[in-house]
Amino acid sequence: MVPQAERFPQNPLISPEQVKPSREGWEVVSTLNAGAVLYQREVLLLVRVAERPMSDRPDELIAPMLDTRSDPPRIRLLRIRRDDPDLTAGDPRMFTYRGQTYLTSISHLRAARSRDGRHFAVDDSPSLAPATWYEAFGVEDPRITEIEGRYLVSYTAVSEYGIAAALASTQDFKSFERRGLIFPPENRDVTIFPQRVNGRHICHHRPVGHHIGAFDMWAAYSPDLQHWGEHARVMGRRPGCWDSGRIGGGAVPIRTERGWLAIYHGADESQRYSLGAILCDLERPELVLARSAQPLLTPEAPYEVEGFFSNVVFTCGAILQGDTLSIYYGAADEFVCGASLSLDELLDTLTPSQTA
Amino acid sequence: MVPQAERFPQNPLISPEQVKPSREGWEVVSTLNAGAVLYQREVLLLVRVAERPMSDRPDELIAPMLDTRSDPPRIRLLRIRRDDPDLTAGDPRMFTYRGQTYLTSISHLRAARSRDGRHFAVDDSPSLAPATWYEAFGVEDPRITEIEGRYLVSYTAVSEYGIAAALASTQDFKSFERRGLIFPPENRDVTIFPQRVNGRHICHHRPVGHHIGAFDMWAAYSPDLQHWGEHARVMGRRPGCWDSGRIGGGAVPIRTERGWLAIYHGADESQRYSLGAILCDLERPELVLARSAQPLLTPEAPYEVEGFFSNVVFTCGAILQGDTLSIYYGAADEFVCGASLSLDELLDTLTPSQTA
Repeated sequence: MVPQAERFPQNPLISPEQVKPSREGWEVVSTLNAGAVLYQREVLLLVRVAERPMSDRPDELIAPMLDTRSDPPRIRLLRIRRDDPDLTAGDPRMFTYRGQTYLTSISHLRAARSRDGRHFAVDDSPSLAPATWYEAFGVEDPRITEIEGRYLVSYTAVSEYGIAAALASTQDFKSFERRGLIFPPENRDVTIFPQRVNGRHICHHRPVGHHIGAFDMWAAYSPDLQHWGEHARVMGRRPGCWDSGRIGGGAVPIRTERGWLAIYHGADESQRYSLGAILCDLERPELVLARSAQPLLTPEAPYEVEGFFSNVVFTCGAILQGDTLSIYYGAADEFVCGASLSLDELLDTLTPSQTA
Repeated sequence: MVPQAERFPQNPLISPEQVKPSREGWEVVSTLNAGAVLYQREVLLLVRVAERPMSDRPDELIAPMLDTRSDPPRIRLLRIRRDDPDLTAGDPRMFTYRGQTYLTSISHLRAARSRDGRHFAVDDSPSLAPATWYEAFGVEDPRITEIEGRYLVSYTAVSEYGIAAALASTQDFKSFERRGLIFPPENRDVTIFPQRVNGRHICHHRPVGHHIGAFDMWAAYSPDLQHWGEHARVMGRRPGCWDSGRIGGGAVPIRTERGWLAIYHGADESQRYSLGAILCDLERPELVLARSAQPLLTPEAPYEVEGFFSNVVFTCGAILQGDTLSIYYGAADEFVCGASLSLDELLDTLTPSQTA
């Protein structure tokens, strides 16, 4: 049996009402999917903060976006009446209007810090906010990798041109250097490994096919972190299981004696998102040695089963201290939460014979 | 007005019945989408040859594929009765069975040679045949780039895992070294430029969004041809035009004094494929300086308007000799054809003011 992650009693750790919107007259609708790292003896989270203009017009949907064609770029609002015949709506996160999909909020990344990993102080302003063409609909779901004396942030850049994977680096989590798109649309859930293997950098990523293919996990290699190739499929969905619908990388993988441990997310066909674990070959991280049969965390707590997008636990970061692995996760696409488990206990259940 | 490419009177240059199937009992259904290069004073084409087992069972559909799990890999046939309720068919190129899309033929690449560029001798056996996981459904649509003393072949690798972009290199068009997938699914139409720009390699490629985005052309940069990044969108479709449905790179771009000339394909919403031209900035090839308003070749000849997949002209290669640009193209997904035009005349119509 896979050990069950124990939820922090302080959950939710961060809620939308705790966070100051970045603009006058706006509201924060979601705080979720935080990258996590130990920085200056604190747990530092880069929280995805999704916000939108407050509206007293229940008869309309609003898509906030950055207009990068204006100089300087500024926020533009697309307002669509709910009874517009060209509108297709239903998912709280997005709608489609005249063939183009828009998001109902725009996300930025914001730092939150904690001495104990449980009580967080959230910054008053964004750390990394949308700024480019490819970020016009928002920046989302950061993963933080400490590597060779700096911190890399791989994040999702969303625009009318698609959902792509972007990279930034920082030394201090105050100023960030953008290093461009590392994967073209459609791609997300990029986790860059914290060490080179045989001289090359590695990541897991999640491209999506259009005509053929599924929401599978892939690996890629890089000489310099900015240019990637040698793509190889890591694993796919498991029909009939909790991860039958789609899968993708979660926390940045952790090197253990037995292999690279990666916490990933899997959703079933009804979009219920849970977390599982895989162990990958140390030399060839595209090879899965073991995969947990059951999830180690699945939506059960009230803040997981109901929220902005219900029945979701989704991680972008975990922190290992001693034997304790603290997993930070987005709950119901609305809250930042935490849960922990014993690394040794988890590894003991990940044996090659359990590979699915 | 864009000059119209003049069709070779010898068209079709290569037809399926001229080509020997690679297996006993099989038939070649299509010869199409050939990469083109000048090699040893001949025009060398790498022709995509699509073939399938002959069948006397009109009540069933067959998907031939390489089973890479057997050792050695061998061809496996998926046979589906046309009245199977789990079958979705209609497109002659593919069908979907229980949620998985399959192809009705499997393609390899085969060399054809000509002294005059019009009369071709086709090899009796494949030059590059499916061999890996990612090629199980076939290898397709090669582009040949001569660069730094060798020939690179960027081609499409199709499998149950998706449609991805692969790279091989060769010195002699007899032995090919595979260099892996350079773009994960979904991606195709990769054209690698024949020179570095500011020390870096460049290509155009065509990723496809799933949730957001369209069939747009993108550019990427590479230090070593195998690892790619710095993705930037080049251009999109033009609503109401001949290229309103989807676009993608065609022939390998040609360096001219005015910019990089690229012949690309565009399809309208009814999947009628035509060819157009763009001129890209010499230093930043993701910037389009000019784009032809009208196509330079559109399906009109009998062998273009009717065939395996009707109303298609699609190029993977062109050869410049003096002022004459000879465009080799697949017609109706069945024949290899050629057409030529004057480079100078084409460039004269590509002025920045005509950019769409």
